[in-house]
Amino acid sequence: MTGTFRGRLLTPSSVAVVGASNDSSRTAGRPIAFLKRHGFRGEIWPVNRNRSTVQDLPAYPSLSSLPGRPDHAFVVLDTEPALAALNELVSLGVPCVTMLADGFSETGPAGLAREHKLRALLAGTKTRVVGPNSLGVINCRTGMALTANAAFAKAPLLPGNVSVISQSGSTIGTFVSRGRARGMGFANLVSVGNEVDLSVGEIGLEILEDPKISTILLFLESIKNAATLEAFAQRAFSLGKTLLAYKLGRSEIGAQLASSHTGAMMSSDRAVDALFRDLGIRRVSVFEALFEATPLFEAKLQPSQSTNRKVAVVCTTGGGGALVADQLGLRGIEIAGPTAGVRSRLAEIGVRLGAGPLIDLTLAGTRPDVMRVAIDAILAEETYAAVVAAIGSSAETYPELAVKPIAEAHASRSETAKPLAVFTVPHAYEALSLLAASGIAGFRTPEACADAIALRLAPIAPRFDLRRRLEQQASIPALASNVDSLSEAEALELFQAIGVPTVRRQLLALRDIERARDLVVDLRPPLVVKLVSADLPHKTEAGAVTLGVYDPSDISRVVAAMLRSARQYRPDARIDQVLIQEQVAPIQEAIIGFKREPAIGSLITLGVGGIFAEIYDDIVVRRAPVCVDEAREMIADVRGLRISAGYRGRPKGDLDALAAAVAAFSRLAALDGVLEAEINPVAIRPEGDGVVAVDGLARLALTHSQGI
Amino acid sequence: MTGTFRGRLLTPSSVAVVGASNDSSRTAGRPIAFLKRHGFRGEIWPVNRNRSTVQDLPAYPSLSSLPGRPDHAFVVLDTEPALAALNELVSLGVPCVTMLADGFSETGPAGLAREHKLRALLAGTKTRVVGPNSLGVINCRTGMALTANAAFAKAPLLPGNVSVISQSGSTIGTFVSRGRARGMGFANLVSVGNEVDLSVGEIGLEILEDPKISTILLFLESIKNAATLEAFAQRAFSLGKTLLAYKLGRSEIGAQLASSHTGAMMSSDRAVDALFRDLGIRRVSVFEALFEATPLFEAKLQPSQSTNRKVAVVCTTGGGGALVADQLGLRGIEIAGPTAGVRSRLAEIGVRLGAGPLIDLTLAGTRPDVMRVAIDAILAEETYAAVVAAIGSSAETYPELAVKPIAEAHASRSETAKPLAVFTVPHAYEALSLLAASGIAGFRTPEACADAIALRLAPIAPRFDLRRRLEQQASIPALASNVDSLSEAEALELFQAIGVPTVRRQLLALRDIERARDLVVDLRPPLVVKLVSADLPHKTEAGAVTLGVYDPSDISRVVAAMLRSARQYRPDARIDQVLIQEQVAPIQEAIIGFKREPAIGSLITLGVGGIFAEIYDDIVVRRAPVCVDEAREMIADVRGLRISAGYRGRPKGDLDALAAAVAAFSRLAALDGVLEAEINPVAIRPEGDGVVAVDGLARLALTHSQGI
Repeated sequence: MTGTFRGRLLTPSSVAVVGASNDSSRTAGRPIAFLKRHGFRGEIWPVNRNRSTVQDLPAYPSLSSLPGRPDHAFVVLDTEPALAALNELVSLGVPCVTMLADGFSETGPAGLAREHKLRALLAGTKTRVVGPNSLGVINCRTGMALTANAAFAKAPLLPGNVSVISQSGSTIGTFVSRGRARGMGFANLVSVGNEVDLSVGEIGLEILEDPKISTILLFLESIKNAATLEAFAQRAFSLGKTLLAYKLGRSEIGAQLASSHTGAMMSSDRAVDALFRDLGIRRVSVFEALFEATPLFEAKLQPSQSTNRKVAVVCTTGGGGALVADQLGLRGIEIAGPTAGVRSRLAEIGVRLGAGPLIDLTLAGTRPDVMRVAIDAILAEETYAAVVAAIGSSAETYPELAVKPIAEAHASRSETAKPLAVFTVPHAYEALSLLAASGIAGFRTPEACADAIALRLAPIAPRFDLRRRLEQQASIPALASNVDSLSEAEALELFQAIGVPTVRRQLLALRDIERARDLVVDLRPPLVVKLVSADLPHKTEAGAVTLGVYDPSDISRVVAAMLRSARQYRPDARIDQVLIQEQVAPIQEAIIGFKREPAIGSLITLGVGGIFAEIYDDIVVRRAPVCVDEAREMIADVRGLRISAGYRGRPKGDLDALAAAVAAFSRLAALDGVLEAEINPVAIRPEGDGVVAVDGLARLALTHSQGI
Repeated sequence: MTGTFRGRLLTPSSVAVVGASNDSSRTAGRPIAFLKRHGFRGEIWPVNRNRSTVQDLPAYPSLSSLPGRPDHAFVVLDTEPALAALNELVSLGVPCVTMLADGFSETGPAGLAREHKLRALLAGTKTRVVGPNSLGVINCRTGMALTANAAFAKAPLLPGNVSVISQSGSTIGTFVSRGRARGMGFANLVSVGNEVDLSVGEIGLEILEDPKISTILLFLESIKNAATLEAFAQRAFSLGKTLLAYKLGRSEIGAQLASSHTGAMMSSDRAVDALFRDLGIRRVSVFEALFEATPLFEAKLQPSQSTNRKVAVVCTTGGGGALVADQLGLRGIEIAGPTAGVRSRLAEIGVRLGAGPLIDLTLAGTRPDVMRVAIDAILAEETYAAVVAAIGSSAETYPELAVKPIAEAHASRSETAKPLAVFTVPHAYEALSLLAASGIAGFRTPEACADAIALRLAPIAPRFDLRRRLEQQASIPALASNVDSLSEAEALELFQAIGVPTVRRQLLALRDIERARDLVVDLRPPLVVKLVSADLPHKTEAGAVTLGVYDPSDISRVVAAMLRSARQYRPDARIDQVLIQEQVAPIQEAIIGFKREPAIGSLITLGVGGIFAEIYDDIVVRRAPVCVDEAREMIADVRGLRISAGYRGRPKGDLDALAAAVAAFSRLAALDGVLEAEINPVAIRPEGDGVVAVDGLARLALTHSQGI
């Protein structure tokens, strides 16, 4: 990011609106109207070639006639004129330009050409661009509503300490509208558009510089620039700030929509989760939770790495308490009932709790003194990691009385206090506003409340600079190949070279097969004999695999039979090698995969062998490389691998060795030439006996750099 | 239900409030205050032994001094006085009594004793009771707010055509509060309390008699009386009315809470789903969807049995459209893009749609004429099963203009039109109220919107009177046994007798084992030889099973070895029989289970064999019995059984035979003596070769009726 850009994005002292209309109801007229309505105090320079005033402000016929160089220009012209204006703005050295026009990469080849043109215009200049296809940039604290989003027609524009960066322009209006209804403001909101120049990550880095901002909300459709996103996340983590994201694309249709909308490559949702996990970005599942959750992540409540997931649910209505408890339970959160301490503290003021896991104050809970005692008592107990209060009709009928004890308890808590969330069971926007004013997380629905609490209690362990980690490790062999895929024998050689134990085997030239009895002396039967041929990808169907060969003298006979069968299957198959392996009797089989995913980078996957991984979608994905401990976490996350962990008294498999193999395999990330690779299967032997890669494949880039 | 009760629950002409307080802020004072506030026009008789007036109404010192027999009495006294009052009300022949007091079965043994006393009081009388532990009964049309729920302090009480029956008293207030905020009223609401007398089902049957009511919402914590619930659901189905339910207990903690709260037995969530499925009760997953969804189920839009699950998403904001489309996708709904017809109709008015599956009108969609054309065009297309409109900031800024075209299109549609839902992206309660007034389903969140649409498009196929179905089938053998469980040999005999194919086998007395070679002549090797003993439940661990016996002459030797091993494992094991079976080589194994679940009845379960069913929780549950077609649906719902369906070119298993076996096994429901039974495993042979039960068990009731 250039120095000149800094500060101009969000706190410009002068803004130009290029193509501003006098009609405030038109899209091109809105920015001037909104800047005036929300009291922006900087210079506002409408540029309109046909008028001397725009909405009662002096207007300028051209960029060259402006009274100075604007800090930030918002170009609201159509596509082609917008490009022309940008050219001029670049010449003038304007540091920051936001472009509304669409018609770029999201519209096909012609748009893509325009995008290249735009990039060429900017190359080597000091001008940085938000968009195109951006609905604008808003700083709520200064009233700088430099946006065409109709939601900003309404006042007031509430200021706050939360920022929003959105790939959907309309969604920033949704946040402002829904937030305003319950007294929640924002520091600033940026619609990033197509990110042709400034990416989510670069804009995020700029926003992080504001010390008042502790939480940044991301509304994402696709991952366009993982590198700047990582730099942003790394800086946020070092500053102790929270990134919360809602990412479209949980479903296949959603992923399609999101990518078509922005013209980006589609990433699998699992790959996105792997990226967020490494970047410490917390992903909400329920849309409204994205902003409702923010007070739970205040700076003074830095996430602990504790594994305590026990939550107290205190309520004035058993029904409301049960609603949120059920949702918490679905997300793996344990509800901890009243401790003896909480019970006795409440008994002192005459409140006797019933049995069961809710701290149900019933009607007594509508008395502020009772609720205050209850919350103080809960906050004092180490048992609980967090507390949720479900407030019934008093939240609507007597919002001040209902909120007061909670706000007081919240205000009095120490730096290390527990997260506190309130679920308002009835329609209770006044109570929600009072909660927001007190910095307390209030939730309208049990689903959003549970989503936010689960997210708050999930420890994060970001991993940055994976590339550097690879470089710091011992180097791995360079890969020299002029083919686009490796045979299984070559793939096993590669995997062995990077530290994956592979099955004991021997490769024989077909011409030597008559001497197999003499040549195969180090392998322990039973043996597996396979024909090696790039022309026989489906060996079993081709009859090119024989299991259970106990005597090496049988090899030549077995190979002859397989050759007949394979040539019947595919007469022109070129076969000149035979692979002979020791047959392995594993506890269980697993599949380890490696691939490079557009926009996200190297990924390592792990699943059980056979078809269950696919049928049950039981596959774990992480960014590569992973260390052995991280591989162990992956193993724990594959449900089907519980079998090898000694499920119900079964013999255990060597999961330590599997973790080591996964970690070793993930170092393929260092070999740029490898696009995709798979060990299928890796045999998990009994505890202490290790694992071995039995079969594998690798797809290569035809031209690639060698090693690292 | 007695005749005298009918009509008195919801439309009494006189109500007595027994124990009414003069202080309207106290619980016991609320019902009188609320009846007055909401303009109840019937007689209101406060009963208070200490006052001549209560809240300015003439009060009566005792029940015997009342000016007449009240149609409905609400007893707001504490537990013991409430029982005394009930005794008097019964003597007076009062047809309907609602009881507020708690302290019954939910509080342990003493409460349970009180519950028995209450039942005894009612036995043989004409008085029917709602509760105890009921917060009251409300008829919004007549202002009969006979309730102590604080939410009814607020006016107005909006009337509507939707009824609510709730096991949580506070939740009726939640519905009224949330509904009021968006112009949604209710016909009536009943807090059923502990259902000691009147159950959800009986109250439902009463409500169904109102022809104006087309939808009944159920907020359920537990299933207490499945029989009356079934009668209610059956009547609702025959009248073409919709039952929508939110049932707590998706999570284990939620299920616990729900049962402890009402003192009911806990049912597994799968069993509840099986019950709802048979009863045609639609279960929502997102709380707010319970009332937001109601307009989708109007009488004139009876659910089709079509399998079309394609939905059109039309929007003024791509972000909002994508939000709801992603959620629909997660629920298996297909988003169908604009048809040529929709495209050309919109092109005629100058709106060109982009690529992709959304019908994104962008800003043009904020013009009412454009939205009207779009919705009319969509409704005219057979492609779509339903339409969702996502409305951006115009829903907040210009609610009338935003809603008008949708309301007009809705009003003009024919009887057979498609379901239409609106997701308001910003905060837009005015638009939601306008939608409600037009009878259109409006949603605040993408999650609730998608939940409701998925529910609306899921065909229902209720099955009532399962017991009758059993009786109509050919009788099955009576079961005579004086033990509490059957040996595997006996269990297989039972399963065979009810029509399940079982493995070919022979039972030998241990004393005959030396003659096995001569006795075992009809079984085809390889054979499996097992020691039969109730003392060896874990046969494999005891070394009491031998596979792969090829020669019957080996049997005696094999048995001798197993006896040594078994006696070492358990010296006192009684062993006097040996079971010899043909060894089966299946395509796949499955487990079929049968059990009787408290409150819900007989259940049949199906899963894959081995441990994957458990690890992946891949088990399908239905109420028993099922017919062969229903069993086929179960098979289709077990993910792991895709293997036998020829997954990725694998050989197919005989799933027709499996369906027949499941159906046959489910007829255990006719044998009251069988509490629980399992075939584990049933071997699925290649297509055409059938299935065989290989092993099994059955747990019996020690005293039981014989057969049916």
